[in-house]
Amino acid sequence: MSTTDAPASEAEASFLSLWADIEAIGSAAGVLGWDQETYMPPKGQPRRGQVLATLAGLGHDKLTSPELADVLAAAETEAGGDPDGVLAAQTREARRTVTRASAIPADLTRRVAGANSRALAAWRQAREDNDFKAFEDDLATNIALTKESAGYLVDAGIADDPYDALLDGFEPGATRSQLTPLLRSLRDELSPIVRAAADSGIRVDETPAKGFFPTDAQFAFGHMVAEQMGYDFEAGRLDVSAHPFTTGFGPKDVRITWRSEEEDFRPGLFGIMHEAGHALYEQGLPDEWAGTPIGNAVSLGVHESQSRLWENLVGRSRPFWQWALPRFAETFPSKADVTVDALWPALHTCVPSLIRVEADEATYNLHIVARFEIEQAIFDDEVEVGDLPTLWDDTYEELLGVRSPVVADGVLQDIHWSMGAFGYFPTYTLGNLINAQLFATMRETLDTDALLAAGDLRPILEWLRENVHRHGRRYPAPELVERATGRPLTADYFLSYLRGTMSDVYGINA
Amino acid sequence: MSTTDAPASEAEASFLSLWADIEAIGSAAGVLGWDQETYMPPKGQPRRGQVLATLAGLGHDKLTSPELADVLAAAETEAGGDPDGVLAAQTREARRTVTRASAIPADLTRRVAGANSRALAAWRQAREDNDFKAFEDDLATNIALTKESAGYLVDAGIADDPYDALLDGFEPGATRSQLTPLLRSLRDELSPIVRAAADSGIRVDETPAKGFFPTDAQFAFGHMVAEQMGYDFEAGRLDVSAHPFTTGFGPKDVRITWRSEEEDFRPGLFGIMHEAGHALYEQGLPDEWAGTPIGNAVSLGVHESQSRLWENLVGRSRPFWQWALPRFAETFPSKADVTVDALWPALHTCVPSLIRVEADEATYNLHIVARFEIEQAIFDDEVEVGDLPTLWDDTYEELLGVRSPVVADGVLQDIHWSMGAFGYFPTYTLGNLINAQLFATMRETLDTDALLAAGDLRPILEWLRENVHRHGRRYPAPELVERATGRPLTADYFLSYLRGTMSDVYGINA
Repeated sequence: MSTTDAPASEAEASFLSLWADIEAIGSAAGVLGWDQETYMPPKGQPRRGQVLATLAGLGHDKLTSPELADVLAAAETEAGGDPDGVLAAQTREARRTVTRASAIPADLTRRVAGANSRALAAWRQAREDNDFKAFEDDLATNIALTKESAGYLVDAGIADDPYDALLDGFEPGATRSQLTPLLRSLRDELSPIVRAAADSGIRVDETPAKGFFPTDAQFAFGHMVAEQMGYDFEAGRLDVSAHPFTTGFGPKDVRITWRSEEEDFRPGLFGIMHEAGHALYEQGLPDEWAGTPIGNAVSLGVHESQSRLWENLVGRSRPFWQWALPRFAETFPSKADVTVDALWPALHTCVPSLIRVEADEATYNLHIVARFEIEQAIFDDEVEVGDLPTLWDDTYEELLGVRSPVVADGVLQDIHWSMGAFGYFPTYTLGNLINAQLFATMRETLDTDALLAAGDLRPILEWLRENVHRHGRRYPAPELVERATGRPLTADYFLSYLRGTMSDVYGINA
Repeated sequence: MSTTDAPASEAEASFLSLWADIEAIGSAAGVLGWDQETYMPPKGQPRRGQVLATLAGLGHDKLTSPELADVLAAAETEAGGDPDGVLAAQTREARRTVTRASAIPADLTRRVAGANSRALAAWRQAREDNDFKAFEDDLATNIALTKESAGYLVDAGIADDPYDALLDGFEPGATRSQLTPLLRSLRDELSPIVRAAADSGIRVDETPAKGFFPTDAQFAFGHMVAEQMGYDFEAGRLDVSAHPFTTGFGPKDVRITWRSEEEDFRPGLFGIMHEAGHALYEQGLPDEWAGTPIGNAVSLGVHESQSRLWENLVGRSRPFWQWALPRFAETFPSKADVTVDALWPALHTCVPSLIRVEADEATYNLHIVARFEIEQAIFDDEVEVGDLPTLWDDTYEELLGVRSPVVADGVLQDIHWSMGAFGYFPTYTLGNLINAQLFATMRETLDTDALLAAGDLRPILEWLRENVHRHGRRYPAPELVERATGRPLTADYFLSYLRGTMSDVYGINA
């Protein structure tokens, strides 16, 4: 349980031992969550919900217990002697989690859980029925309770304003003042690119990516690519689920899921590469820190940077397809005559659309900008819940030039708000920016084009292991990015990558 | 959460609410256990062990907490007003579990867990190496710690002698004085039958059960039979595992596993029918008692009666095969010319053998008699650990007329002792006796031959639901058997069934 080579002190050992129980409860809940999405028989759902709620309650009780408070305080005292040491990082992360858990009264936590559960059901139905009114009251309740929670978080000193307190829940330390310039530069630079692509008159030929791709063959190809990436199937699995996800129970058991379309290979393959990217991060977390506060991924933004790096910067690159295409043609003989030059543009379309999860690399971040602006309006009390559909559509029209004819593809499209996850969306964009900055830095010392063309992905993974994965939560996310890349996070690398791609596909010189 | 139609009192509600947490922890551990045996990637094992140990510790803490003691005492006071009521049954079962959990000091519990874990690993290796010495010390430790635990259980008033205290852990209330006459009558009556079968000169032709049975086809056939039995696949699953088992997380999620041999269909099919029999019991437990003390199966003996009834009394019967054989022949065309008369003897062989789990109906209980006698010798301090291999072989020679040339197929064959599960074996025989008594009673009102021949298994399941499943732990196992069959448990029905079968196959008139 020691986190250094030195033997653990009694204070450190007591603290980490109690913490290990909390992590174990979370780990058990993770397995139950995975099972729920993959193999649980349908009638098991109600009881599963109860069991997961019980585990969540047990974990919360432990996090807010006087016993933990005592051993954490003792460990903090000891860590004070070496503020840059590992123990200081352990107590920093533990304190952060305890503070957030303790800030919100147990009664409010229960009300939130109940409201989210009702809102989720209402949202599913409302989306199916294309009926915002059927969701409005539950959404209003979720927003009101989230504001109440955020108020407690502000009172506890976690952030200066409510929306920052929410952001911090997903991206520790992230603030609007940090995010606003990044997202503003994306807004300012992406919108012209998207417009220019539309005005170029070029329509990408997507037929090389379409046809008939039997599910079994897609599985075999995706499995092979995941292995090539370095995903360890002895410490993981690939299963089917309605929505692809990655879930880890320590670095030795990290599972991914996928789904596929038989008429288009892209969702299946890039879904697997995306989730395998997430999973490589979790498999690369230090085993000796498993079950400790710094043994986890540092933030959702950094997590997303790993998935997007493999999905986009590797998986959609020309050199990768120089290696992959002969294998692809073997697996899908009907595609034997496809060339890299023919396929590549179909991996880099730029078409403004309504649905975030189906958006391409170029437009994706504008979907996030829209949500960032709307969420701030909500938490700055600048919009009524009943006006959200209109605000949504107006924002889309302004940013992307499209307006949904149905609310189901507008404000009702995402699950997040129904689960009370406000402040989550910006992490997707952070991931896109971080991955470009990491990859550009990596290319200063690695000839990634040559490696990819040879199918030699190991040095790329090793770079990520060395600069990102092995650190767990040892450093806060912004510090980790700066240590890995030599400068604070900027949108420049992402925009530069995107300009290059758009120039090649659409002849835009933005 | 109420267990009657009347609204729950505050005492009842508080007690059942705390208890629900304990059951939820157990339920979570159950899912993790299932996952471990089916889909967990191999490298996940060490961490999984830690998480399961943590959950076990959390459950134990709750069971022995002052909070539970208080609400249980209050519920007991209230239940005193209606000693035959449901609440009295709830408190009786809860008290039983709490008393057992509280009797053994936490330190001893931890030492037992550690010793069992080491012994399990040592046993696996020793069995592989056919080397008793490599297991002897760990076995001695397991026995010593079990004696220590049993001593605490006796001190807590759970039983009068140590072995009874162990039996009670698997079959509540079972005692040597109750079991001894039952197992003695089996010993006295089965041995002559087994000898007579051997002396008959008849060797059953097993070729109808042998050949080539592709795994996929076996799965399809077994799946169909399990559905015909009434197993609800919307509330269950059938997966592959090294050792078949059933595990339930409430009646709406009860999963079974199987394994198969392609050259003999019997292990696969009867394995599925056996586990589906277990699962029908769990699926039939009252949903309104899920998560309460009486919401579980009453004992391992009764559980085994359900699996054996479907496996043996249904699955090996002539009328069942009158219905099943045409479907079997369709699934396995190479067996199209097999008749019920040709197949039936191959389902009822009587051949003394060394390995319990491969034993036939006739000899199986002699394997249990052997273990019952040896375990009593251990806990009456009548045998040294080093002498167990010889005692084992001598007992087998006496009871079954066979002697293992290797210790791996002798005293090392079972996993139970390596896990500290002493007193478990007799429940297998109780299951065989109970199922015969239940089936004989069922036949007083149901024409099971006609139903089976028509493939109409629903009335058989309904009888079991009505007389066994729906009661959960409402009554202690012996009372449940007496209520269902009108008389206390006896070996008569089983012996009568077996004599009939052996007479038909071997012409024995025992």
